[in-house]
Amino acid sequence: MFISRRRIRVEWGDCDPAGIVFYPNYFRWFDSGTAVLFEEAGLSLPQLYREHGLKGFPLLEAKASFSGSSAFGDDLECEALVAEWGAKTFSVRHRMLRGGTLLVEGSELRICAIPHPDDPQRIKAAPIPAVVKERLGGAKE
Amino acid sequence: MFISRRRIRVEWGDCDPAGIVFYPNYFRWFDSGTAVLFEEAGLSLPQLYREHGLKGFPLLEAKASFSGSSAFGDDLECEALVAEWGAKTFSVRHRMLRGGTLLVEGSELRICAIPHPDDPQRIKAAPIPAVVKERLGGAKE
Amino acid sequence: MFISRRRIRVEWGDCDPAGIVFYPNYFRWFDSGTAVLFEEAGLSLPQLYREHGLKGFPLLEAKASFSGSSAFGDDLECEALVAEWGAKTFSVRHRMLRGGTLLVEGSELRICAIPHPDDPQRIKAAPIPAVVKERLGGAKE
Amino acid sequence: MFISRRRIRVEWGDCDPAGIVFYPNYFRWFDSGTAVLFEEAGLSLPQLYREHGLKGFPLLEAKASFSGSSAFGDDLECEALVAEWGAKTFSVRHRMLRGGTLLVEGSELRICAIPHPDDPQRIKAAPIPAVVKERLGGAKE
Repeated sequence: MFISRRRIRVEWGDCDPAGIVFYPNYFRWFDSGTAVLFEEAGLSLPQLYREHGLKGFPLLEAKASFSGSSAFGDDLECEALVAEWGAKTFSVRHRMLRGGTLLVEGSELRICAIPHPDDPQRIKAAPIPAVVKERLGGAKE
Repeated sequence: MFISRRRIRVEWGDCDPAGIVFYPNYFRWFDSGTAVLFEEAGLSLPQLYREHGLKGFPLLEAKASFSGSSAFGDDLECEALVAEWGAKTFSVRHRMLRGGTLLVEGSELRICAIPHPDDPQRIKAAPIPAVVKERLGGAKE
Repeated sequence: MFISRRRIRVEWGDCDPAGIVFYPNYFRWFDSGTAVLFEEAGLSLPQLYREHGLKGFPLLEAKASFSGSSAFGDDLECEALVAEWGAKTFSVRHRMLRGGTLLVEGSELRICAIPHPDDPQRIKAAPIPAVVKERLGGAKE
Repeated sequence: MFISRRRIRVEWGDCDPAGIVFYPNYFRWFDSGTAVLFEEAGLSLPQLYREHGLKGFPLLEAKASFSGSSAFGDDLECEALVAEWGAKTFSVRHRMLRGGTLLVEGSELRICAIPHPDDPQRIKAAPIPAVVKERLGGAKE
Protein backbone atom coordinates (compact mmCIF):
# COMPACT_ATOMS: atom_id res chain seq x y z
CA MET A 1 0.00 0.00 0.00
CA PHE A 2 1.36 3.39 -1.00
CA ILE A 3 1.65 5.94 1.82
CA SER A 4 2.31 9.61 1.28
CA ARG A 5 4.02 11.59 4.01
CA ARG A 6 4.56 15.31 4.09
CA ARG A 7 5.15 18.00 6.66
CA ILE A 8 2.93 21.04 7.16
CA ARG A 9 3.91 24.11 9.11
CA VAL A 10 0.94 25.66 10.93
CA GLU A 11 0.66 29.32 9.97
CA TRP A 12 -0.65 32.25 11.97
CA GLY A 13 -3.64 32.61 9.69
CA ASP A 14 -4.57 28.94 10.15
CA CYS A 15 -5.29 29.59 13.83
CA ASP A 16 -8.25 31.11 15.60
CA PRO A 17 -8.60 33.37 18.66
CA ALA A 18 -8.14 30.31 20.91
CA GLY A 19 -4.66 30.10 19.39
CA ILE A 20 -5.30 26.72 17.78
CA VAL A 21 -5.92 25.59 14.23
CA PHE A 22 -9.40 26.53 13.02
CA TYR A 23 -10.73 23.07 12.25
CA PRO A 24 -11.90 23.48 8.62
CA ASN A 25 -8.22 23.92 7.77
CA TYR A 26 -7.61 20.26 8.59
CA PHE A 27 -10.02 19.37 5.80
CA ARG A 28 -8.15 21.76 3.52
CA TRP A 29 -5.03 19.73 4.33
CA PHE A 30 -6.91 16.49 3.74
CA ASP A 31 -7.86 17.71 0.27
CA SER A 32 -4.32 18.74 -0.66
CA GLY A 33 -3.04 15.56 1.00
CA THR A 34 -5.04 13.48 -1.46
CA ALA A 35 -3.58 15.46 -4.36
CA VAL A 36 -0.08 14.88 -2.98
CA LEU A 37 -0.82 11.16 -2.50
CA PHE A 38 -1.67 10.77 -6.18
CA GLU A 39 1.25 12.88 -7.29
CA GLU A 40 3.79 11.02 -5.18
CA ALA A 41 2.46 7.75 -6.57
CA GLY A 42 3.27 9.05 -10.03
CA LEU A 43 -0.33 9.79 -10.93
CA SER A 44 -0.89 13.19 -12.52
CA LEU A 45 -4.51 14.10 -11.87
CA PRO A 46 -4.95 16.28 -14.99
CA GLN A 47 -3.44 13.53 -17.16
CA LEU A 48 -5.55 10.86 -15.45
CA TYR A 49 -8.72 12.88 -16.00
CA ARG A 50 -7.84 13.45 -19.65
CA GLU A 51 -6.86 9.90 -20.50
CA HIS A 52 -9.81 8.27 -18.77
CA GLY A 53 -12.40 10.95 -19.56
CA LEU A 54 -13.00 11.61 -15.87
CA LYS A 55 -14.65 14.62 -14.30
CA GLY A 56 -12.60 14.00 -11.17
CA PHE A 57 -13.01 12.28 -7.82
CA PRO A 58 -15.72 14.27 -6.07
CA LEU A 59 -16.31 13.85 -2.38
CA LEU A 60 -19.19 11.83 -0.93
CA GLU A 61 -18.24 12.03 2.73
CA ALA A 62 -15.57 13.58 4.91
CA LYS A 63 -14.96 13.16 8.60
CA ALA A 64 -12.35 13.83 11.25
CA SER A 65 -11.71 13.05 14.90
CA PHE A 66 -9.68 15.47 16.97
CA SER A 67 -7.64 14.19 19.88
CA GLY A 68 -5.25 17.11 20.23
CA SER A 69 -4.86 20.66 19.03
CA SER A 70 -2.03 22.34 17.17
CA ALA A 71 -0.81 25.91 17.19
CA PHE A 72 1.14 28.50 15.22
CA GLY A 73 4.58 27.22 14.25
CA ASP A 74 3.83 23.55 14.84
CA ASP A 75 5.19 21.12 12.31
CA LEU A 76 2.62 18.46 11.51
CA GLU A 77 3.42 15.13 9.92
CA CYS A 78 0.64 14.29 7.47
CA GLU A 79 0.02 10.78 6.23
CA ALA A 80 -2.39 9.77 3.49
CA LEU A 81 -3.23 6.39 2.03
CA VAL A 82 -6.17 4.66 0.40
CA ALA A 83 -7.72 2.57 3.16
CA GLU A 84 -10.57 1.03 1.21
CA TRP A 85 -11.46 0.37 -2.40
CA GLY A 86 -14.91 -0.01 -3.87
CA ALA A 87 -15.57 -0.61 -7.56
CA LYS A 88 -16.31 3.07 -8.13
CA THR A 89 -15.34 4.63 -4.82
CA PHE A 90 -12.34 4.77 -2.55
CA SER A 91 -11.63 6.07 0.91
CA VAL A 92 -8.51 8.08 1.72
CA ARG A 93 -7.34 7.95 5.32
CA HIS A 94 -5.55 11.01 6.65
CA ARG A 95 -3.56 11.24 9.85
CA MET A 96 -1.88 14.31 11.29
CA LEU A 97 0.70 13.93 14.05
CA ARG A 98 3.08 16.19 15.95
CA GLY A 99 6.24 14.62 17.30
CA GLY A 100 4.72 11.20 16.73
CA THR A 101 1.51 11.96 18.64
CA LEU A 102 -1.70 11.59 16.68
CA LEU A 103 -3.73 14.82 16.71
CA VAL A 104 -6.26 14.36 13.95
CA GLU A 105 -7.47 11.34 12.04
CA GLY A 106 -9.97 11.49 9.24
CA SER A 107 -11.14 10.16 5.96
CA GLU A 108 -12.55 11.21 2.64
CA LEU A 109 -14.85 8.96 0.64
CA ARG A 110 -14.47 9.84 -3.03
CA ILE A 111 -16.16 8.60 -6.16
CA CYS A 112 -14.79 8.20 -9.66
CA ALA A 113 -16.91 10.44 -11.87
CA ILE A 114 -17.46 10.74 -15.60
CA PRO A 115 -19.82 13.11 -17.42
CA HIS A 116 -23.36 11.78 -17.42
CA PRO A 117 -24.25 10.51 -20.92
CA ASP A 118 -27.65 12.26 -20.81
CA ASP A 119 -26.40 15.56 -19.46
CA PRO A 120 -22.69 16.43 -19.46
CA GLN A 121 -23.30 18.94 -16.67
CA ARG A 122 -24.17 16.09 -14.34
CA ILE A 123 -21.84 13.30 -13.30
CA LYS A 124 -22.10 9.52 -13.18
CA ALA A 125 -20.08 7.00 -11.18
CA ALA A 126 -17.51 5.03 -13.15
CA PRO A 127 -15.05 2.22 -12.39
CA ILE A 128 -11.76 3.40 -10.93
CA PRO A 129 -8.99 3.17 -13.55
CA ALA A 130 -6.81 0.10 -12.93
CA VAL A 131 -3.65 2.22 -12.85
CA VAL A 132 -4.96 4.08 -9.79
CA LYS A 133 -5.47 0.86 -7.86
CA GLU A 134 -2.09 -0.46 -9.01
CA ARG A 135 -0.16 2.59 -7.92
CA LEU A 136 -1.99 3.26 -4.69
CA GLY A 137 -2.02 -0.36 -3.77
CA GLY A 138 -4.23 -3.08 -2.55
CA ALA A 139 -5.89 -3.91 -5.85
CA LYS A 140 -6.44 -7.64 -6.15
CA GLU A 141 -8.63 -7.78 -9.20
CA MET B 1 -36.00 21.82 20.11
CA PHE B 2 -34.49 25.10 18.97
CA ILE B 3 -33.62 25.31 15.27
CA SER B 4 -31.56 28.07 13.76
CA ARG B 5 -32.06 28.94 10.12
CA ARG B 6 -29.98 31.33 8.08
CA ARG B 7 -29.16 31.94 4.46
CA ILE B 8 -25.67 31.92 2.98
CA ARG B 9 -24.74 33.30 -0.39
CA VAL B 10 -21.98 31.28 -2.06
CA GLU B 11 -19.16 33.62 -3.02
CA TRP B 12 -16.68 33.40 -5.90
CA GLY B 13 -13.82 32.73 -3.53
CA ASP B 14 -15.70 29.84 -1.90
CA CYS B 15 -15.52 27.89 -5.16
CA ASP B 16 -12.75 25.89 -6.77
CA PRO B 17 -11.67 25.38 -10.40
CA ALA B 18 -14.50 22.86 -10.85
CA GLY B 19 -16.82 25.81 -10.22
CA ILE B 20 -18.27 24.31 -7.05
CA VAL B 21 -17.80 25.03 -3.36
CA PHE B 22 -14.43 23.84 -2.06
CA TYR B 23 -15.61 21.43 0.59
CA PRO B 24 -13.73 22.69 3.68
CA ASN B 25 -15.89 25.81 3.39
CA TYR B 26 -18.93 23.75 4.40
CA PHE B 27 -17.19 23.05 7.69
CA ARG B 28 -16.46 26.77 8.03
CA TRP B 29 -20.20 27.30 7.69
CA PHE B 30 -20.91 24.53 10.21
CA ASP B 31 -18.67 26.31 12.70
CA SER B 32 -20.32 29.69 12.24
CA GLY B 33 -23.71 27.95 12.15
CA THR B 34 -23.13 26.68 15.68
CA ALA B 35 -22.23 30.21 16.82
CA VAL B 36 -25.42 31.52 15.21
CA LEU B 37 -27.47 28.73 16.83
CA PHE B 38 -26.33 29.77 20.30
CA GLU B 39 -26.79 33.44 19.56
CA GLU B 40 -30.29 33.04 18.17
CA ALA B 41 -31.23 31.04 21.27
CA GLY B 42 -30.19 34.03 23.35
CA LEU B 43 -26.92 32.50 24.51
CA SER B 44 -23.92 34.81 24.29
CA LEU B 45 -20.86 32.57 24.04
CA PRO B 46 -18.43 35.06 25.67
CA GLN B 47 -20.87 35.61 28.56
CA LEU B 48 -21.49 31.87 28.89
CA TYR B 49 -17.76 31.17 29.01
CA ARG B 50 -17.22 33.89 31.61
CA GLU B 51 -20.13 32.98 33.89
CA HIS B 52 -19.44 29.25 33.86
CA GLY B 53 -15.66 29.40 33.75
CA LEU B 54 -15.56 27.55 30.44
CA LYS B 55 -12.73 27.33 27.97
CA GLY B 56 -15.27 26.79 25.21
CA PHE B 57 -16.85 23.90 23.34
CA PRO B 58 -13.96 22.31 21.45
CA LEU B 59 -14.61 19.87 18.68
CA LEU B 60 -14.21 16.10 19.07
CA GLU B 61 -15.54 15.03 15.69
CA ALA B 62 -16.89 16.58 12.51
CA LYS B 63 -18.38 14.92 9.49
CA ALA B 64 -20.37 15.69 6.38
CA SER B 65 -22.13 13.86 3.56
CA PHE B 66 -22.41 15.53 0.19
CA SER B 67 -25.34 14.72 -2.06
CA GLY B 68 -25.18 17.76 -4.32
CA SER B 69 -22.85 20.60 -5.16
CA SER B 70 -23.37 24.35 -5.04
CA ALA B 71 -21.89 27.14 -7.11
CA PHE B 72 -21.15 30.87 -7.13
CA GLY B 73 -24.26 32.92 -6.42
CA ASP B 74 -26.28 30.08 -4.92
CA ASP B 75 -28.34 30.89 -1.86
CA LEU B 76 -28.08 28.10 0.67
CA GLU B 77 -30.52 27.57 3.50
CA CYS B 78 -28.56 26.48 6.56
CA GLU B 79 -30.18 24.72 9.50
CA ALA B 80 -28.54 23.93 12.81
CA LEU B 81 -29.88 22.21 15.90
CA VAL B 82 -28.58 20.12 18.78
CA ALA B 83 -29.45 16.56 17.81
CA GLU B 84 -28.02 14.77 20.83
CA TRP B 85 -27.04 15.61 24.38
CA GLY B 86 -24.49 13.85 26.53
CA ALA B 87 -23.66 14.90 30.06
CA LYS B 88 -20.55 16.72 28.87
CA THR B 89 -20.92 16.60 25.11
CA PHE B 90 -23.45 17.54 22.50
CA SER B 91 -23.84 17.01 18.80
CA VAL B 92 -24.91 19.78 16.43
CA ARG B 93 -26.60 18.70 13.24
CA HIS B 94 -26.14 20.94 10.21
CA ARG B 95 -28.10 20.79 6.98
CA MET B 96 -27.58 22.91 3.89
CA LEU B 97 -30.24 23.05 1.21
CA ARG B 98 -30.86 24.93 -2.01
CA GLY B 99 -34.43 25.47 -3.04
CA GLY B 100 -35.50 22.87 -0.53
CA THR B 101 -33.12 20.18 -1.85
CA LEU B 102 -30.64 18.83 0.65
CA LEU B 103 -27.05 19.25 -0.54
CA VAL B 104 -24.97 18.70 2.56
CA GLU B 105 -25.70 17.16 5.92
CA GLY B 106 -23.20 16.98 8.72
CA SER B 107 -22.55 17.10 12.40
CA GLU B 108 -20.14 18.41 14.96
CA LEU B 109 -19.56 16.61 18.25
CA ARG B 110 -18.47 19.18 20.82
CA ILE B 111 -17.40 18.93 24.44
CA CYS B 112 -17.90 21.37 27.29
CA ALA B 113 -14.41 22.29 28.49
CA ILE B 114 -13.01 23.94 31.61
CA PRO B 115 -9.36 24.61 32.45
CA HIS B 116 -7.73 21.49 33.89
CA PRO B 117 -7.21 21.95 37.67
CA ASP B 118 -3.63 20.59 37.43
CA ASP B 119 -2.60 22.58 34.37
CA PRO B 120 -4.69 25.54 33.16
CA GLN B 121 -3.16 25.12 29.68
CA ARG B 122 -4.92 21.81 29.31
CA ILE B 123 -8.68 21.29 29.33
CA LYS B 124 -11.03 18.97 31.16
CA ALA B 125 -14.57 17.91 30.29
CA ALA B 126 -17.31 19.51 32.40
CA PRO B 127 -21.10 19.22 32.61
CA ILE B 128 -22.97 21.34 30.10
CA PRO B 129 -24.55 24.37 31.85
CA ALA B 130 -28.27 23.81 32.37
CA VAL B 131 -29.15 27.04 30.59
CA VAL B 132 -27.63 25.68 27.38
CA LYS B 133 -29.82 22.59 27.47
CA GLU B 134 -32.87 24.67 28.37
CA ARG B 135 -32.46 27.12 25.54
CA LEU B 136 -31.39 24.65 22.86
CA GLY B 137 -33.96 22.16 23.97
CA GLY B 138 -34.47 18.54 24.58
CA ALA B 139 -32.93 18.32 28.04
CA LYS B 140 -34.86 15.87 30.21
CA GLU B 141 -32.60 15.52 33.20
CA MET C 1 -22.71 57.35 -8.29
CA PHE C 2 -24.02 53.99 -7.18
CA ILE C 3 -22.98 52.89 -3.68
CA SER C 4 -23.46 49.39 -2.34
CA ARG C 5 -23.80 48.93 1.40
CA ARG C 6 -23.94 45.63 3.21
CA ARG C 7 -23.25 44.32 6.66
CA ILE C 8 -20.74 41.59 7.48
CA ARG C 9 -20.60 39.70 10.75
CA VAL C 10 -17.04 38.81 11.73
CA GLU C 11 -16.83 35.07 12.37
CA TRP C 12 -14.59 33.13 14.72
CA GLY C 13 -12.69 31.60 11.83
CA ASP C 14 -11.99 35.03 10.34
CA CYS C 15 -9.85 35.91 13.36
CA ASP C 16 -6.29 35.01 14.29
CA PRO C 17 -4.59 34.22 17.61
CA ALA C 18 -4.41 37.95 18.36
CA GLY C 19 -8.22 37.83 18.39
CA ILE C 20 -8.56 40.15 15.40
CA VAL C 21 -9.46 39.63 11.76
CA PHE C 22 -6.65 37.97 9.81
CA TYR C 23 -6.05 40.67 7.21
CA PRO C 24 -6.35 38.67 3.96
CA ASN C 25 -10.02 38.24 4.87
CA TYR C 26 -10.57 41.95 4.25
CA PHE C 27 -9.52 41.37 0.64
CA ARG C 28 -11.91 38.44 0.49
CA TRP C 29 -14.64 40.87 1.53
CA PHE C 30 -13.44 43.41 -1.04
CA ASP C 31 -13.80 40.77 -3.73
CA SER C 32 -17.30 39.76 -2.71
CA GLY C 33 -18.13 43.44 -2.17
CA THR C 34 -17.42 44.12 -5.84
CA ALA C 35 -19.71 41.24 -6.82
CA VAL C 36 -22.44 42.66 -4.59
CA LEU C 37 -21.92 46.16 -6.02
CA PHE C 38 -22.59 44.89 -9.55
CA GLU C 39 -25.52 42.79 -8.45
CA GLU C 40 -27.20 45.59 -6.49
CA ALA C 41 -26.81 47.84 -9.52
CA GLY C 42 -28.77 45.28 -11.51
CA LEU C 43 -25.76 43.92 -13.34
CA SER C 44 -25.55 40.13 -13.47
CA LEU C 45 -21.88 39.26 -13.96
CA PRO C 46 -22.51 35.94 -15.77
CA GLN C 47 -24.97 37.66 -18.13
CA LEU C 48 -22.60 40.59 -18.65
CA TYR C 49 -19.73 38.26 -19.49
CA ARG C 50 -21.88 36.30 -21.90
CA GLU C 51 -23.45 39.25 -23.71
CA HIS C 52 -20.19 41.16 -24.09
CA GLY C 53 -17.88 38.21 -24.62
CA LEU C 54 -15.87 39.09 -21.55
CA LYS C 55 -13.46 36.89 -19.64
CA GLY C 56 -14.20 38.93 -16.53
CA PHE C 57 -12.68 41.85 -14.66
CA PRO C 58 -9.33 40.54 -13.44
CA LEU C 59 -7.41 42.42 -10.81
CA LEU C 60 -4.38 44.59 -11.58
CA GLU C 61 -3.82 46.01 -8.10
CA ALA C 62 -5.29 45.77 -4.63
CA LYS C 63 -4.46 47.72 -1.53
CA ALA C 64 -5.78 48.47 1.92
CA SER C 65 -5.01 50.75 4.86
CA PHE C 66 -5.85 49.59 8.34
CA SER C 67 -6.71 52.15 11.00
CA GLY C 68 -8.50 49.86 13.44
CA SER C 69 -9.02 46.19 14.06
CA SER C 70 -12.18 44.14 14.35
CA ALA C 71 -12.98 41.03 16.32
CA PHE C 72 -15.32 38.03 16.51
CA GLY C 73 -18.95 39.09 16.54
CA ASP C 74 -18.37 42.60 15.19
CA ASP C 75 -20.81 43.87 12.62
CA LEU C 76 -19.00 45.71 9.87
CA GLU C 77 -20.65 48.12 7.49
CA CYS C 78 -19.13 47.63 4.05
CA GLU C 79 -19.33 50.22 1.33
CA ALA C 80 -18.27 49.77 -2.28
CA LEU C 81 -18.37 52.17 -5.21
CA VAL C 82 -16.46 52.78 -8.42
CA ALA C 83 -14.16 55.68 -7.61
CA GLU C 84 -12.44 56.02 -10.95
CA TRP C 85 -13.08 55.02 -14.54
CA GLY C 86 -10.51 54.46 -17.26
CA ALA C 87 -11.39 53.39 -20.79
CA LYS C 88 -10.58 49.78 -20.02
CA THR C 89 -10.06 49.81 -16.27
CA PHE C 90 -11.94 50.90 -13.18
CA SER C 91 -11.13 51.24 -9.53
CA VAL C 92 -13.49 50.03 -6.81
CA ARG C 93 -13.18 51.76 -3.46
CA HIS C 94 -14.05 49.69 -0.39
CA ARG C 95 -14.60 51.01 3.10
CA MET C 96 -15.33 48.97 6.22
CA LEU C 97 -16.67 50.68 9.32
CA ARG C 98 -17.90 49.64 12.74
CA GLY C 99 -20.41 51.91 14.43
CA GLY C 100 -19.56 54.62 11.93
CA THR C 101 -15.80 54.46 12.59
CA LEU C 102 -13.64 53.68 9.58
CA LEU C 103 -11.48 50.61 10.17
CA VAL C 104 -10.26 49.65 6.73
CA GLU C 105 -10.15 51.50 3.44
CA GLY C 106 -8.93 49.96 0.24
CA SER C 107 -9.25 49.69 -3.48
CA GLU C 108 -9.16 47.23 -6.31
CA LEU C 109 -8.02 48.23 -9.78
CA ARG C 110 -9.70 45.94 -12.30
CA ILE C 111 -9.47 45.61 -16.06
CA CYS C 112 -12.13 44.62 -18.56
CA ALA C 113 -10.82 41.48 -20.25
CA ILE C 114 -11.72 39.61 -23.44
CA PRO C 115 -10.05 36.49 -24.84
CA HIS C 116 -6.89 37.42 -26.77
CA PRO C 117 -7.55 37.02 -30.52
CA ASP C 118 -4.21 35.21 -31.01
CA ASP C 119 -4.52 32.90 -28.03
CA PRO C 120 -7.87 32.41 -26.25
CA GLN C 121 -6.00 31.26 -23.14
CA ARG C 122 -4.58 34.76 -22.74
CA ILE C 123 -6.58 37.91 -22.16
CA LYS C 124 -6.64 41.35 -23.73
CA ALA C 125 -7.96 44.62 -22.35
CA ALA C 126 -11.25 45.80 -23.81
CA PRO C 127 -13.47 48.87 -23.39
CA ILE C 128 -15.83 48.70 -20.43
CA PRO C 129 -19.41 48.04 -21.62
CA ALA C 130 -21.44 51.27 -21.53
CA VAL C 131 -24.12 49.66 -19.35
CA VAL C 132 -21.57 49.16 -16.58
CA LYS C 133 -20.65 52.83 -16.52
CA GLU C 134 -24.30 53.84 -16.70
CA ARG C 135 -25.39 51.68 -13.81
CA LEU C 136 -22.40 52.27 -11.57
CA GLY C 137 -22.35 55.95 -12.35
CA GLY C 138 -20.06 58.72 -13.19
CA ALA C 139 -19.69 57.96 -16.90
CA LYS C 140 -19.45 61.21 -18.88
CA GLU C 141 -18.39 59.94 -22.25
CA MET D 1 20.08 42.87 3.36
CA PHE D 2 18.55 39.55 4.37
CA ILE D 3 16.33 37.88 1.76
CA SER D 4 14.08 34.93 2.47
CA ARG D 5 13.21 32.58 -0.37
CA ARG D 6 10.74 29.75 -0.24
CA ARG D 7 8.64 27.76 -2.63
CA ILE D 8 4.86 27.48 -2.50
CA ARG D 9 2.83 24.89 -4.34
CA VAL D 10 -0.54 26.27 -5.48
CA GLU D 11 -3.30 24.01 -4.20
CA TRP D 12 -6.70 23.23 -5.70
CA GLY D 13 -8.47 25.09 -2.91
CA ASP D 14 -6.38 28.22 -3.51
CA CYS D 15 -7.96 28.61 -6.94
CA ASP D 16 -11.31 30.00 -8.04
CA PRO D 17 -13.75 29.04 -10.80
CA ALA D 18 -11.55 30.88 -13.31
CA GLY D 19 -8.93 28.27 -12.45
CA ILE D 20 -6.50 30.83 -11.03
CA VAL D 21 -5.43 31.75 -7.52
CA PHE D 22 -8.13 33.66 -5.65
CA TYR D 23 -6.23 36.86 -4.94
CA PRO D 24 -6.64 37.17 -1.15
CA ASN D 25 -4.50 34.04 -0.93
CA TYR D 26 -1.49 36.04 -2.12
CA PHE D 27 -1.88 38.22 0.97
CA ARG D 28 -2.08 35.06 3.08
CA TRP D 29 1.27 34.08 1.57
CA PHE D 30 2.65 37.58 2.20
CA ASP D 31 1.72 37.21 5.86
CA SER D 32 3.35 33.81 6.25
CA GLY D 33 6.27 35.05 4.14
CA THR D 34 6.98 37.73 6.74
CA ALA D 35 6.93 35.09 9.49
CA VAL D 36 9.35 32.95 7.47
CA LEU D 37 11.60 35.97 6.84
CA PHE D 38 11.97 36.58 10.58
CA GLU D 39 12.46 32.90 11.33
CA GLU D 40 15.10 32.39 8.66
CA ALA D 41 16.98 35.40 10.00
CA GLY D 42 17.10 33.66 13.37
CA LEU D 43 14.40 35.81 14.94
CA SER D 44 11.77 33.89 16.88
CA LEU D 45 8.66 36.07 16.93
CA PRO D 46 7.29 34.72 20.24
CA GLN D 47 10.70 35.21 21.90
CA LEU D 48 11.06 38.67 20.38
CA TYR D 49 7.64 39.69 21.63
CA ARG D 50 8.39 38.36 25.10
CA GLU D 51 11.84 39.88 25.49
CA HIS D 52 10.89 43.31 24.18
CA GLY D 53 7.37 43.46 25.61
CA LEU D 54 5.84 43.75 22.16
CA LYS D 55 2.26 43.17 21.13
CA GLY D 56 3.49 42.28 17.64
CA PHE D 57 3.94 43.99 14.30
CA PRO D 58 0.41 44.88 13.21
CA LEU D 59 -0.27 45.89 9.66
CA LEU D 60 -0.83 49.50 8.59
CA GLU D 61 -1.02 48.94 4.85
CA ALA D 62 -0.87 46.10 2.36
CA LYS D 63 -0.80 46.21 -1.41
CA ALA D 64 -0.12 44.03 -4.41
CA SER D 65 0.22 44.36 -8.18
CA PHE D 66 -0.67 41.42 -10.36
CA SER D 67 1.08 40.95 -13.69
CA GLY D 68 0.32 37.27 -14.20
CA SER D 69 -1.88 34.56 -12.80
CA SER D 70 -1.02 31.18 -11.36
CA ALA D 71 -2.93 27.93 -11.31
CA PHE D 72 -3.29 24.60 -9.50
CA GLY D 73 0.01 22.78 -9.27
CA ASP D 74 2.20 25.79 -10.00
CA ASP D 75 5.33 26.15 -7.93
CA LEU D 76 5.84 29.76 -6.92
CA GLU D 77 9.13 31.19 -5.77
CA CYS D 78 8.43 33.63 -2.95
CA GLU D 79 10.89 36.30 -1.89
CA ALA D 80 10.60 38.56 1.14
CA LEU D 81 12.89 41.29 2.43
CA VAL D 82 12.59 44.48 4.43
CA ALA D 83 12.70 47.23 1.82
CA GLU D 84 12.39 50.23 4.11
CA TRP D 85 12.95 51.04 7.76
CA GLY D 86 11.29 53.77 9.78
CA ALA D 87 11.98 54.36 13.46
CA LYS D 88 8.83 52.47 14.45
CA THR D 89 7.71 50.97 11.15
CA PHE D 90 9.10 48.81 8.41
CA SER D 91 7.99 47.72 5.00
CA VAL D 92 8.30 44.12 3.80
CA ARG D 93 8.52 43.63 0.06
CA HIS D 94 7.12 40.38 -1.32
CA ARG D 95 7.66 39.00 -4.81
CA MET D 96 6.15 35.84 -6.25
CA LEU D 97 7.60 34.35 -9.43
CA ARG D 98 7.06 31.25 -11.54
CA GLY D 99 9.99 30.00 -13.55
CA GLY D 100 11.73 33.33 -12.98
CA THR D 101 8.79 35.41 -14.25
CA LEU D 102 7.36 37.90 -11.79
CA LEU D 103 3.64 37.33 -11.21
CA VAL D 104 2.86 39.33 -8.08
CA GLU D 105 4.72 42.06 -6.26
CA GLY D 106 3.49 43.59 -3.05
CA SER D 107 4.33 45.09 0.28
CA GLU D 108 3.22 45.19 3.85
CA LEU D 109 3.82 48.23 6.05
CA ARG D 110 4.03 47.08 9.65
CA ILE D 111 4.43 48.92 12.94
CA CYS D 112 6.21 47.83 16.08
CA ALA D 113 3.55 47.79 18.82
CA ILE D 114 3.63 47.73 22.60
CA PRO D 115 0.67 47.80 24.98
CA HIS D 116 -0.57 51.36 25.49
CA PRO D 117 0.45 52.57 28.99
CA ASP D 118 -3.04 54.00 29.62
CA ASP D 119 -4.98 51.01 28.33
CA PRO D 120 -3.30 47.65 27.76
CA GLN D 121 -6.08 46.71 25.33
CA ARG D 122 -4.86 49.41 22.97
CA ILE D 123 -1.47 49.55 21.30
CA LYS D 124 1.20 52.22 20.93
CA ALA D 125 4.03 52.50 18.41
CA ALA D 126 7.48 51.69 19.76
CA PRO D 127 11.02 51.72 18.34
CA ILE D 128 11.96 48.60 16.43
CA PRO D 129 14.35 46.45 18.51
CA ALA D 130 17.93 46.85 17.26
CA VAL D 131 18.31 43.10 16.80
CA VAL D 132 15.56 43.13 14.19
CA LYS D 133 17.33 45.76 12.12
CA GLU D 134 20.66 43.99 12.54
CA ARG D 135 19.40 40.63 11.40
CA LEU D 136 17.17 41.84 8.59
CA GLY D 137 19.74 44.31 7.40
CA GLY D 138 20.18 47.83 6.30
CA ALA D 139 20.13 49.45 9.73
CA LYS D 140 22.69 52.25 9.94
CA GLU D 141 21.78 53.83 13.23
